[in-house]
Amino acid sequence: MDARQFEEFGKAAIDFISNYTENLRERDVLPSVEPGYLSKLMPNEAPRQAESWQDVLKDVERLILPGMTHWNSPQFHAYYPAGNSYPGIVGEMLSAGFGCIGFSWMSSPACTELEIITMNWLGKMLGLPKEFLNCSDGPGGGVIQGSASEATLVGLLAAKEKTTRRIKSLHPDLDEGIIKAKLVAYTSDQANSSVERAGLLGSVPMRLLPTDDKCRLRGYTLLEAMKKDEEAGLIPCYVVANLGTTGTCAFDVLDELGPICNENNLWLHVDAAYAGSAFVCPEYRYLMSGINYVDSFNFNPHKWLLVNFDCSAMWVKNAGYLIDAFNVDRIYLAHDKQGQALDYRHWQIPLGRRFRALKLWFVLRLYGIEGLQNHIRRMVKLAHQFENFVNSDDRFEIVTEVSLGLVCFRMKGDNSLTRELLDRLMKRKRIYTIAANYKDQLIVRFVVCSRMCEEKDIEFAWNEISSQATEILIVSRNQTARMFENGELPYENLNGKMEERQR
Amino acid sequence: MDARQFEEFGKAAIDFISNYTENLRERDVLPSVEPGYLSKLMPNEAPRQAESWQDVLKDVERLILPGMTHWNSPQFHAYYPAGNSYPGIVGEMLSAGFGCIGFSWMSSPACTELEIITMNWLGKMLGLPKEFLNCSDGPGGGVIQGSASEATLVGLLAAKEKTTRRIKSLHPDLDEGIIKAKLVAYTSDQANSSVERAGLLGSVPMRLLPTDDKCRLRGYTLLEAMKKDEEAGLIPCYVVANLGTTGTCAFDVLDELGPICNENNLWLHVDAAYAGSAFVCPEYRYLMSGINYVDSFNFNPHKWLLVNFDCSAMWVKNAGYLIDAFNVDRIYLAHDKQGQALDYRHWQIPLGRRFRALKLWFVLRLYGIEGLQNHIRRMVKLAHQFENFVNSDDRFEIVTEVSLGLVCFRMKGDNSLTRELLDRLMKRKRIYTIAANYKDQLIVRFVVCSRMCEEKDIEFAWNEISSQATEILIVSRNQTARMFENGELPYENLNGKMEERQR
Repeated sequence: MDARQFEEFGKAAIDFISNYTENLRERDVLPSVEPGYLSKLMPNEAPRQAESWQDVLKDVERLILPGMTHWNSPQFHAYYPAGNSYPGIVGEMLSAGFGCIGFSWMSSPACTELEIITMNWLGKMLGLPKEFLNCSDGPGGGVIQGSASEATLVGLLAAKEKTTRRIKSLHPDLDEGIIKAKLVAYTSDQANSSVERAGLLGSVPMRLLPTDDKCRLRGYTLLEAMKKDEEAGLIPCYVVANLGTTGTCAFDVLDELGPICNENNLWLHVDAAYAGSAFVCPEYRYLMSGINYVDSFNFNPHKWLLVNFDCSAMWVKNAGYLIDAFNVDRIYLAHDKQGQALDYRHWQIPLGRRFRALKLWFVLRLYGIEGLQNHIRRMVKLAHQFENFVNSDDRFEIVTEVSLGLVCFRMKGDNSLTRELLDRLMKRKRIYTIAANYKDQLIVRFVVCSRMCEEKDIEFAWNEISSQATEILIVSRNQTARMFENGELPYENLNGKMEERQR
Repeated sequence: MDARQFEEFGKAAIDFISNYTENLRERDVLPSVEPGYLSKLMPNEAPRQAESWQDVLKDVERLILPGMTHWNSPQFHAYYPAGNSYPGIVGEMLSAGFGCIGFSWMSSPACTELEIITMNWLGKMLGLPKEFLNCSDGPGGGVIQGSASEATLVGLLAAKEKTTRRIKSLHPDLDEGIIKAKLVAYTSDQANSSVERAGLLGSVPMRLLPTDDKCRLRGYTLLEAMKKDEEAGLIPCYVVANLGTTGTCAFDVLDELGPICNENNLWLHVDAAYAGSAFVCPEYRYLMSGINYVDSFNFNPHKWLLVNFDCSAMWVKNAGYLIDAFNVDRIYLAHDKQGQALDYRHWQIPLGRRFRALKLWFVLRLYGIEGLQNHIRRMVKLAHQFENFVNSDDRFEIVTEVSLGLVCFRMKGDNSLTRELLDRLMKRKRIYTIAANYKDQLIVRFVVCSRMCEEKDIEFAWNEISSQATEILIVSRNQTARMFENGELPYENLNGKMEERQR
């Protein structure tokens, strides 16, 4: 493909993206395909000869789009948002166009330096303590990771190395392997699966501690767990506090956890994957009270700050601990500015790294701080619009307090009603929501995700939910009535009974 | 930014990329900036108000390009190539445009299915044994990782879990932590730094075993090391064989290592990061003889197969071991096709994943198998053109046999001459090469990297190298002559002497 063809293809792809994005409302948010659909439509082998870009682009429309879950659709209310915006997309394009691999300063100075600068900008926008910023004196700084999973693992590995060295200096005769086998880490039972996974990958047991009635990890719970482990001869080393949990967007109590961690030499990492973006608005910063106690802080601009995946922002108070844990140098990586310049390869799991700062820079400049604040505030407002719909309908209840863009609700009564609601929504594919558990209750998580979501989309979603609830209750009432007439069992056994009848 | 502005901005960016790429020869391959250059040119904070895309794009030219190391320049001969091509760039654009996060089948069926299909295509193109392919019966399959570093770590973690379970089943009373503290892994002293790092991150000592005179890890070396460790009560669990090492593109002897690993329950992982791409040409497949013994195989299409970073292709014979090591499920990740469909989140370190298969698909279709074979063959031919230049000049010597696109050479005589050559090339910024060590010799690694590299670029590089050698030898001869006249010390102390004179 020569440059002229690329220009045609690339511009056609730009139109394709624009057209796709602007017309997302016309597509079902969920696809109607079964596992294996695509292999039935494609050849078993790559073509021997080059094909034309026109054919490939047609196949994206014909084969790929029907199998997509549309994360940027205004009808996508599942998980948390996948950040996306036009400036971010162009940033990603340019990064691909340059194709540099910024593992060291020398391997691409602009790649490293723009990352330092944009991470300072972003840290200031969030109101992070100065010690986290590269532009302050001291050993702190920010880095763009690929995902919150990696940030949590990086924190754990640094904590592991730091603790091992500390114990080793206190007890020089202890074997390192034995020390490492005694380490233990903590988080809440509401933490994202990636936190438990970091423990698994890093070979440190990750205790999922119980939370209070607001789904928050409290200081006394941590203290109790530490005490028990210490009595068993184990060594507490790492705590992951969650600011905005995946299930209900709850906030662990940093003000309680922080002092405990600092006094007991535990590395305190904050996973604010979703909620961190809200801190660009000063009115939400109370939610990170206690941040001054924290060793590392991470949130995902690729979730709620309009930067497309992947761009996970992590700051540490002392980058020296990462370098201690990760530094493996070779002659071919050496360069004559070493020592003067920062080599990000020591801050992360992989060696290679893309020029991800470009897209962050584009988003920050083309939205501006106020544009991003407006975006967050608008999303939160839409969540409250949805909350009002729920509250106005007697058949539903809000389960946990609405938190940022997340509304957790359910149908009153037995969990089977909410289960049926979720199943129907999923089958109809008009909106996408997912389930969570709160205590013994099954709940629907409704998140305002797409930057294109508007009041009319919230209305659309509510109409869909409310009309399905009506149908569920009609069916349920009719069945119950019939069962009473026939002297059958009441509601609980409904599914089993229905199967029996069908036989 | 609305859709119309995006179309303008995106199309301007396409022209920018095309213009940048086609005119790379006019720029020095290395930048002339000092650490900290960019922060002097930029504001300390993000703008409050949105700026215009025209200003941002101008700043890319004005601020970013002067600080770039141009990995795709035909004068870039350092490291190994960073894959890049027009089709790959457009694939990355579309992936950013869709912005889906494919951690489970349901979260984006097309994202998972296209990955399965393209990885089957690619596996067939390389002539991998059928057991590695998802389209064969059995538990094998391919997955796109972000980097070879991650693939090596994924292999290690799977090996660790598998071995721990095996030992635990033999000795149920042994503590898991104690078993894990006894595990040990092996690779060659020529392995990429990321292999040693995988050991560090996974808390398994990674032994860097000595290689033979062709820089290859041999079976007897592995056996000896295993024996020693077993005698010390340790448990060998993982071997990383290198096909195409970073230093000299050497190939470990899989035919010897394989049977030893299989007989002793060691997981054998192959890191063919660079060289793997060559296996699309049947004439190079002899270099992977012994692949049938392997448990996991990885190479980087983002190195030499024209797919832009990141796209690291990994195949495993039994994906069950990855899932055992990584599976941490949650209700919010559940979907009703589980069991029928593949959830790639269990195959990798992070939870989230981009739609990376798109760019691989685009490259495979828009080059075709033959186009990619031609690309590899052309690069190898250019390496031999360069080799001929070296061989035709008495002042130089080829150090290790030319291997694929890599030529390792040096100036005859003392290492200080080659050191001086490397320093001069680096300062002049016309071509970019890096150093490596071979035994006690300092060598220059010259790699044919850019897909745009042509005969004239090889000539350009050779003229640069050869003219610098001439200057070095003239300076050196003059200085030696002067020193003899003055009755001074011979060559070794030259630098110290010169400094003294300057004072």
